[in-house]
Amino acid sequence: MFAQRVPEEVSLDDVAEAAGVSRPLVYRYFPGGKQQLYEAALRSAAQELEGCFAEPLEGSLTERLSRAVDRYLAFVDQHDAGFSALLQGGSVIETSRTTAIVDGVRRAAAEQILDHLGVRNPGLKLRMTVRMWITAVEAASLIWLDEGKEPPLDELRDWLVEQFVVTVVATAGRDPQTASVVKAALAAEGADGVVGTLGRRVLPVIGDAARLL
Amino acid sequence: MFAQRVPEEVSLDDVAEAAGVSRPLVYRYFPGGKQQLYEAALRSAAQELEGCFAEPLEGSLTERLSRAVDRYLAFVDQHDAGFSALLQGGSVIETSRTTAIVDGVRRAAAEQILDHLGVRNPGLKLRMTVRMWITAVEAASLIWLDEGKEPPLDELRDWLVEQFVVTVVATAGRDPQTASVVKAALAAEGADGVVGTLGRRVLPVIGDAARLL
Repeated sequence: MFAQRVPEEVSLDDVAEAAGVSRPLVYRYFPGGKQQLYEAALRSAAQELEGCFAEPLEGSLTERLSRAVDRYLAFVDQHDAGFSALLQGGSVIETSRTTAIVDGVRRAAAEQILDHLGVRNPGLKLRMTVRMWITAVEAASLIWLDEGKEPPLDELRDWLVEQFVVTVVATAGRDPQTASVVKAALAAEGADGVVGTLGRRVLPVIGDAARLL
Repeated sequence: MFAQRVPEEVSLDDVAEAAGVSRPLVYRYFPGGKQQLYEAALRSAAQELEGCFAEPLEGSLTERLSRAVDRYLAFVDQHDAGFSALLQGGSVIETSRTTAIVDGVRRAAAEQILDHLGVRNPGLKLRMTVRMWITAVEAASLIWLDEGKEPPLDELRDWLVEQFVVTVVATAGRDPQTASVVKAALAAEGADGVVGTLGRRVLPVIGDAARLL
């Protein structure tokens, strides 16, 4: 219920009715009332979302990232109203505990990505780059919900993965650790993969800039 | 005071003392007490920050953006404790009003950028791209403060401008409007500018990927 409605529109009576139990029974398990119920629901959603990030260490990095982003966007799609209410900020239901739960999900996402990049001791610039992209994905998700889920999920997914590729490549120009990660990742890419497709689409746009090199 | 300390560590007595007035006088002007004072301070800081974005429509886009990001980072540098407390979320001082003020600054930043891109009716993908970059800049700023202001301000500024360039270029591969904006912007770039420098640094890292094209 907290996924499909804003917290203000969920009452303990609704929850009791949906669960087929009495209101006092809900209070017996959740003496803190709606706030406690909300935090429990949020913890459960956070766990489900972290599960979306898990991905075997096989295939090209962009294929793995595509699958994880696809599951993430499906989660956002299914939890739309709650996701917006929580992340837009200023919600009555927001506390230091809910913020900590959300930050835990962000940390889990960053750790998964760094694991897949094969980096054991990520330096500042690589960590910053990964966190910047994760925040950008959140921002894109909120706008996506706001705009009636346009562009379609598949297109948004591919676009977000492309954004990851270019953001890491830009950092590679300033950071040797990121540069070696990028080189290794590119070697595993196929011509029909995200990087090849992106390159073929972008080259005609930036071709004239070759004079700057 | 709200810039250099977290809100919890600013008392009305501190404010009265710093202003050289009595506590009752502070209450006469701010009957809502600390929360009202904080919101007034935030509104004033928001106005100052929006002023940082103003930039004449002259020179290459990356030069203009560099100057604006430079002023923004100087603002973050000077308001470090308050900036972190406000944007990390879960602060006791956060209300729907403070969230609205912060969102207003984000909107002003996005409008400035779209103005400089010379776009009158920005489509969804261009708007999303600009908002994603603005959020990424916020995330980078928070990590920067957390990490003792490393990398140095100048380097962070150049890096953030590079991130803007690549994020817009990636979107250009999917969006004709963004593609024409990018083409026009690149034509105004000099070889010693951000794009040329970025290109020369990145090419050795991604050169082998030419086989994917």
